[in-house]
Amino acid sequence: MALGTKDRILDATVGLLRRQGYAGTGLKQIAVTSHAPWSSLYHFFPGGKDELVEDALMVAGRRYESTIDRLFKESRDGAAATRAFLMLSVHALERSEFADGCPIATAALEAASTSDRLRTTAATVFQFWVNAAAAKFQSEGLSSTRAREIATFALATFEGAIILSRTYKSTEPLKQCAEMLERAIRAEIAARPRRPRKGQ
Amino acid sequence: MALGTKDRILDATVGLLRRQGYAGTGLKQIAVTSHAPWSSLYHFFPGGKDELVEDALMVAGRRYESTIDRLFKESRDGAAATRAFLMLSVHALERSEFADGCPIATAALEAASTSDRLRTTAATVFQFWVNAAAAKFQSEGLSSTRAREIATFALATFEGAIILSRTYKSTEPLKQCAEMLERAIRAEIAARPRRPRKGQ
Repeated sequence: MALGTKDRILDATVGLLRRQGYAGTGLKQIAVTSHAPWSSLYHFFPGGKDELVEDALMVAGRRYESTIDRLFKESRDGAAATRAFLMLSVHALERSEFADGCPIATAALEAASTSDRLRTTAATVFQFWVNAAAAKFQSEGLSSTRAREIATFALATFEGAIILSRTYKSTEPLKQCAEMLERAIRAEIAARPRRPRKGQ
Repeated sequence: MALGTKDRILDATVGLLRRQGYAGTGLKQIAVTSHAPWSSLYHFFPGGKDELVEDALMVAGRRYESTIDRLFKESRDGAAATRAFLMLSVHALERSEFADGCPIATAALEAASTSDRLRTTAATVFQFWVNAAAAKFQSEGLSSTRAREIATFALATFEGAIILSRTYKSTEPLKQCAEMLERAIRAEIAARPRRPRKGQ
């Protein structure tokens, strides 16, 4: 089934944000890329560029969230799932010849000090991802606080590794971080405080 | 001594890149912020915006490099130095009310797929930093390859933690990553392959 005009506009916006960020993405380019009539941009997003970008970040954020959720639920443990998630991005970068970064991170970095609306949208999306990963770490015996700290650490390393891999045009930083993160998380989980077993 | 016009232009450019990135920073704003006559921008940077931004990234990159170099040389070990480096950014974010990110990362993310010149400049700068940190890890007995992998991991986590901290307007992600990185690096160094001692 062909996508409706609104979905096409949102998809095109996500794609452009991944490649060139917020300031570099103009409404005209979005209209051309999505084959949408100019008037439909204002019809669907009367608030203009910020409303459109906010919706696009939320759409992209929910998609990644279900990927994370599925991956972490299906994986043997959270450490392996984290590694697998970074390896997904290795393939995405290779497929797109290093053009496709994380749409949220780019917009977040640019907009953090200029648009509070986009900043809070990006923060909400990051929280979705942290929650999805933290659930797995909690199921492995970590406290909710510790589980969220480890998920935050993994997300930070992931986002930074994407920056380095795109900058170097090499997937090595992502692969190295995937391995190192897996080991670090495994060590954190092995070192968790154990509740005394009954009878001890 | 007052800065010369060229240095003022470069300083203003670094400051604007940290706050709003490459695409969001116009030559006019740079001229206004640096109190430089419009004509001097073209006098000092005849190649225009890309030449100016390239020089600014290199200036900022060298400054951070000497900070990293000093910090790693003065610290007890590489793990503690890494933590101390992240904590420096906690203070920089607090001082600037979360406006000042890493000038290199923002420009790198935006320009990775649109300007090969800025991309390679950012890659060169990241390599300076990795080398400065890796020297310390090597002095702790790691192979040159392993030392660079750990420095790359630390840099990725640092850059990602800045994104999260700016997005959340909270220094918690940076602080959590500083602790977690220190532990992870300490474990990597403890697990390094030991050369057999003489006579064994």
